[in-house]
Amino acid sequence: MMIFEAETLFMLSQTSEYALRAMAWLALTPSELVATSTLAEKTQVPATYLAKVLQQLSAADLITGRRGVGGGYRLARDPSAITLLQVIQAVGVLQRIPSCPLGIATHGSNLCPLHRKSDEAAAAVIEIYDGVTLEDLISDPNSNTPLCETRPKIPLTVTARKGV
Amino acid sequence: MMIFEAETLFMLSQTSEYALRAMAWLALTPSELVATSTLAEKTQVPATYLAKVLQQLSAADLITGRRGVGGGYRLARDPSAITLLQVIQAVGVLQRIPSCPLGIATHGSNLCPLHRKSDEAAAAVIEIYDGVTLEDLISDPNSNTPLCETRPKIPLTVTARKGV
Repeated sequence: MMIFEAETLFMLSQTSEYALRAMAWLALTPSELVATSTLAEKTQVPATYLAKVLQQLSAADLITGRRGVGGGYRLARDPSAITLLQVIQAVGVLQRIPSCPLGIATHGSNLCPLHRKSDEAAAAVIEIYDGVTLEDLISDPNSNTPLCETRPKIPLTVTARKGV
Repeated sequence: MMIFEAETLFMLSQTSEYALRAMAWLALTPSELVATSTLAEKTQVPATYLAKVLQQLSAADLITGRRGVGGGYRLARDPSAITLLQVIQAVGVLQRIPSCPLGIATHGSNLCPLHRKSDEAAAAVIEIYDGVTLEDLISDPNSNTPLCETRPKIPLTVTARKGV
């Protein structure tokens, strides 16, 4: 019955969710270039889709990459300096409502109750994602690690080479 | 640079936004059948797109319709008995995250920090939209009226016939 069944994935766009997964993995392996094929496997995202997401993240200067054999992507800066909101905004639209989306002149920035509620919802979501960095996702010893079966006890890059 | 440029519209899916607009208009004219073409004009939504949205709202028993000359849609119940959340959920996905979206067995319902944040955001949005009915959108005398240039001083259906 849905027109776009895959349009939203727990509210975030699918593209945003995939971007966040990719960035979480890169945050776990900040010192190495990770191949798109490896990222696709870890994030469970189709490789061609993920490649486009990575291009967007690169265009937003959140990751840097190198082509060719041994190439891949890594974070462009420390995980503590990248918020989830920055990741989401690199690949999609997540913003407050500045003025009437229908362009009604008498409304302008004085939103009607419908768009005021949507603006309120957007503000709440922005605040939540703006308050979390990639570092926060991976630094809590009492939490599961994103994308990982078990919390690695040895450096994750080594664990990953064992096929985990 | 966006893969799906029109994917999100101030966080809500475009389909949800369009559904809310349509329902807001029907709430303003609860006693009459409104033609899809009229709704398309008032909501600024392409008629073929809107027709599919209206089918979804009808399938969810939020509106009832009649085909043919003089046909159209009206709300299936009082505007005070329909929340914005019900409208959104009739046409898309807006839900909490019950368990690890990647199906990682050791996570299960014990979400990692990434998906815990997304769950938190979903919960915040659900709470906001669940707390507002269609009646709330149109009953505040100090607010703009959704979709309307000016607050109608006479019954809206008459105003609408004047071409407003």
